[in-house]
Amino acid sequence: MIGNAVQELLLENEESLMIDGENVATLLDTHPLDHALLVLTNIGYSKIPVLDSEGRYVGLISLSAVVEAMFNTTDIEPGRLADFKVADVMEECRTAVKLPVNIEKVLNLLVNDNFVVVTDGNDTFAGIITRREILKAVNHTVHELETRYHVTEKTPVVKVKQAQKIS
Amino acid sequence: MIGNAVQELLLENEESLMIDGENVATLLDTHPLDHALLVLTNIGYSKIPVLDSEGRYVGLISLSAVVEAMFNTTDIEPGRLADFKVADVMEECRTAVKLPVNIEKVLNLLVNDNFVVVTDGNDTFAGIITRREILKAVNHTVHELETRYHVTEKTPVVKVKQAQKIS
Repeated sequence: MIGNAVQELLLENEESLMIDGENVATLLDTHPLDHALLVLTNIGYSKIPVLDSEGRYVGLISLSAVVEAMFNTTDIEPGRLADFKVADVMEECRTAVKLPVNIEKVLNLLVNDNFVVVTDGNDTFAGIITRREILKAVNHTVHELETRYHVTEKTPVVKVKQAQKIS
Repeated sequence: MIGNAVQELLLENEESLMIDGENVATLLDTHPLDHALLVLTNIGYSKIPVLDSEGRYVGLISLSAVVEAMFNTTDIEPGRLADFKVADVMEECRTAVKLPVNIEKVLNLLVNDNFVVVTDGNDTFAGIITRREILKAVNHTVHELETRYHVTEKTPVVKVKQAQKIS
């Protein structure tokens, strides 16, 4: 469990923790892969969320999955890309978190992923929380903690017992 | 500045913080881009370090930079890749940290990059510290802090003055 002081500092700039959906590059599951290649190369992110036509979060697509779809056994054939859709090579729905976010869960998920998708109650895509935004909050927390709080080691149980005997 | 208690927890598993150079996928600056494409697609990382023939860290190469080199104005031409070397499209040497690492500097650099390169005294590539390893250390720290330490808010100066007046 994360204690109150740490949690308060981590969430002190909570409103800037999530990048709002309208500012996140996404693809539709029905987009052809040649379009996906252009988008992923231009934005410079290696993986982005995939939505369906209703705006629901359905998966993640990576640049390497699209490039792999170009490979034949021995050659690279860019023409193959138009034959596939995003839905054919995406990773299907991974974990998402709901608003208001549980910071403990987010910190855990970001050990393995570059970002966590945030959805609202109806699985509608709301935005993402990236490692970048969390690491900003972590920097703030580790710098401020011992400025604002006294942090003193708890006396181990064995020491308390000894002290009682002596007195 | 990061206080002592937080710093101690962040570095408690310091030996697992850096991934040793021999376990990190790298490319040579002289490798042709068709080889780079295969390596970057297979390992599933979007960016890896580039070394020279002496083992010195000279830059970073990304999958999107390699894919961009395939684009002609309107077409994708995989044949172009054999004409370029890694040195032609890599980002030249970015910041690296030296051993023993300064955790404050590492936490700052990881806000903007997925990993930080670690070099020894002669700029020889020693390994990388990734956001993944740092986020493991952060999870450990935020969970342990208030278990092992008493964390109490410092009395703001104004309150102390009021208290003195009353007494």
